[in-house]
Amino acid sequence: MKSDHSSPGIDRRALLSGLALLPALPELLLPVSTQAQTAPGAPLASWNDGPAKQAVVDFVHAITDRASPKFVAPEQRIATFDQDGTLWVEHPIYSQVVYCLDRVPAVVAQKPGLKDVEPFKTVLSGDREAMAKLSRHDLEIILAATLTGMPVDKFEAEVKSWLETAKHPRWKRPYTDLVYQPMLDVLQYLRDNAFKTYIVTGGGQDFVRVYSQRVYGIPPEQVVGTMGGTKFGYDEDGKPFLTKEPKLLLNNDNAGKPEGIHLMLGRRPRAAFGNSVGDREMLEYAGAGEGARLMMLVLHDDAQREYAYGPARGLPDSKFGTFPRALDGEAKRNGWTVISMKNDWNRIFPFDS
Amino acid sequence: MKSDHSSPGIDRRALLSGLALLPALPELLLPVSTQAQTAPGAPLASWNDGPAKQAVVDFVHAITDRASPKFVAPEQRIATFDQDGTLWVEHPIYSQVVYCLDRVPAVVAQKPGLKDVEPFKTVLSGDREAMAKLSRHDLEIILAATLTGMPVDKFEAEVKSWLETAKHPRWKRPYTDLVYQPMLDVLQYLRDNAFKTYIVTGGGQDFVRVYSQRVYGIPPEQVVGTMGGTKFGYDEDGKPFLTKEPKLLLNNDNAGKPEGIHLMLGRRPRAAFGNSVGDREMLEYAGAGEGARLMMLVLHDDAQREYAYGPARGLPDSKFGTFPRALDGEAKRNGWTVISMKNDWNRIFPFDS
Repeated sequence: MKSDHSSPGIDRRALLSGLALLPALPELLLPVSTQAQTAPGAPLASWNDGPAKQAVVDFVHAITDRASPKFVAPEQRIATFDQDGTLWVEHPIYSQVVYCLDRVPAVVAQKPGLKDVEPFKTVLSGDREAMAKLSRHDLEIILAATLTGMPVDKFEAEVKSWLETAKHPRWKRPYTDLVYQPMLDVLQYLRDNAFKTYIVTGGGQDFVRVYSQRVYGIPPEQVVGTMGGTKFGYDEDGKPFLTKEPKLLLNNDNAGKPEGIHLMLGRRPRAAFGNSVGDREMLEYAGAGEGARLMMLVLHDDAQREYAYGPARGLPDSKFGTFPRALDGEAKRNGWTVISMKNDWNRIFPFDS
Repeated sequence: MKSDHSSPGIDRRALLSGLALLPALPELLLPVSTQAQTAPGAPLASWNDGPAKQAVVDFVHAITDRASPKFVAPEQRIATFDQDGTLWVEHPIYSQVVYCLDRVPAVVAQKPGLKDVEPFKTVLSGDREAMAKLSRHDLEIILAATLTGMPVDKFEAEVKSWLETAKHPRWKRPYTDLVYQPMLDVLQYLRDNAFKTYIVTGGGQDFVRVYSQRVYGIPPEQVVGTMGGTKFGYDEDGKPFLTKEPKLLLNNDNAGKPEGIHLMLGRRPRAAFGNSVGDREMLEYAGAGEGARLMMLVLHDDAQREYAYGPARGLPDSKFGTFPRALDGEAKRNGWTVISMKNDWNRIFPFDS
C-alpha cells in the first residue's frame, strides 16, 4: 500500500514566502529574444557524459530497436515533462504567479471598486512584506481575478504582451529565456525519435499554451495543465467566443497529473520528467506500465549557475516544491534517474556561451 | 445576437424512443473485421463530383497553396469531426447506449442487490416496451453504473470485448464496420495535407478512444468527447491505477463542443464536420476564425443505403439529433456545405462493393 503517498504535498498556490522576492512591475520594453530550440551538433550536446545522459540514450536505443523485445511502435511514444523547475526556472517564484500579481493594476483599473478591497489593496501598495503575508485564499482571489472573466483571445494577448516585457529579477531577461538548454536537447532528441512530447504542469494550461510552441516546440494541444472551464457565447455582432470561467476542472498537480494525462491523452506515457513532489504520481504512473520506461528528476544543486534548493541543501522538505530527501531513496527504489544540474549539464541556458 | 441559439437542443441521453429497436444481447462470437482505412486510388474516391466534393478540394487547395493569401501553415491545420451520424451510423440508437444496456447484466452479477432495483430490473427483463419508457434519469443511472466505478484499463478491455461481439440489428455487423467510407476518405485526404484530425463527439471520450485508432486512424489523444473524472490510487501491491469516477467534467455537445475543443486543443479548428444541432456551435466556432474555413453537414437522405431522417423527411426537428429544417437556411447563410449521402457519396460503407 502506498496510501501514505497521498500526503498533502506542496501546494503551489501557498508558496507565499517567494513573494518577498517579487520583482517590481516590469518597466522596460525590450523585444522578445528568439532562442535556439536546440544546441547545434550532436544530440544532447549540453549534457556531460554520465549516468543521466546514459539513461536517456539507453532508453531511446532500447525502444527504437526493432529487434529488441523492448521495441515500442512510434505512435506509442509519449513523453511528459513538468515545466516549473524541470523545463525552466521556478525560483524565486513561479512566473505565472508574477503574471497574476503584475495584472492586478489593470484589473483594478477596470473595476475601480477593488482599489480599497483586500487582497488587491495590498498588492497595489507594493509593500512586499505585506504581500508575503497574503493567505492562500487571498492568492486564489487574485488568480481568479487575473486569469478568468475575459475572452480566451484577450487572455492570450495579455499573456503575450506580459512575456515581452516582464523580466526575471536575477538575469534581467524574459522568463521564456530561462529554459534549460539540456531539457530542450532532450525534447528534440525524443522528437527526433518519433516521440510526442507533452508539458504536464501544475501551471495554468492556457497560460503555458501561449508560448509552448515558440519556447519548447510543443503545440498548444500538447500542453496539459491546471484546467479551468470556458463558456461559449455570442458577442453583439453574433460572433461566437469563449470566456474563461472561474471554474476549476482539474488541479493538474500531484495525483492530478496522471488524471490530467488520462483526460488529455488517454494513455500512459513511456517517459516522464519532473523535479518535485508534485511530479511523484506522474512518474509512478509512467513507471507502472510494461516494457522500457524512463523516469527522471531534475535536482537543483547548482547555486552558481542556477539555484541549490530542496534536497541539495539538505532540507527535509522544500517550500519550492522540490522533492524531499525521502524521495532520494524512493527514486532509487523506483528506478528513477536523478539529474544533477551541476554535474550532468555543461550548459544551463540557451544564452550561456 | 444569437442568444436564441442557446436552445435546449437535443439531449443524446433522452433518446429513449430508439430503445424500442434495441437488439438482443449479442450471442455470436465473430472475429473483428479489419477494414480498409481508405479507398484505393484517387483521394475522395467514394465521392461523386459535385458541390460537396468540390468544397473539400477547393478548401485544401486554397490553404496549401503557399502563394495564396489563404495559405495556412501545416502546424495550424486542425479539423474536427463529430462521430455519431457524421463518421458512423447513429441509427436506430447510439452504439454507446447499446453498450451500456448490454453491460447491465454484468453489473448486476457483481452487485446482485441491483437485480430488483429500477431501472436495472426493467433492463434485465428485456421488455422493450418498458425500456422505451425509461426516463432520462433512469438512463443516467445506467450510464453511471456501466461507464464508471472501474479502473480505466478494465473499462477499455470491456469495451474492446463488446465491440468484438455486438452487432448492428440491420447489417448484422460490428458497429465499427458501419463507418462512412467517404468520411474515411476525407480524414485521409486532410491528413495527407498535414491536418491533425480530431473526433469531437457527445459520446464518451474514453469509449471512443478504445477504437479510434483502428477505425479512423485517429489516436486516443485526438478524441474529444464527454469527459468524466478519474481518481488516482494504488492497488494492494502499491501499483498506481486510475478509476473512472461518476463525475462529469464536460458534456461535449452543443456549446460544450467548442468548450471541449478549447480545453483539449487550445485553438480553433480550420475545418469542422457535423450532422446535428449538437454540432451547430462547433461549426459556428470554426467558421468565426479568419481566413479559409470549411464547415460541412452530413444530410441523412438515403433511406435505401442508410437512413433518411431529420430534414430529409421534412421533420421540423428530430429525435435523432439531426439538424432541423431551420438549419438549412442557416447553413446557407453561414457558408456551410450540406453533404447529401444520396447524391454525393457513391459508396456508404467500406464493405460496400
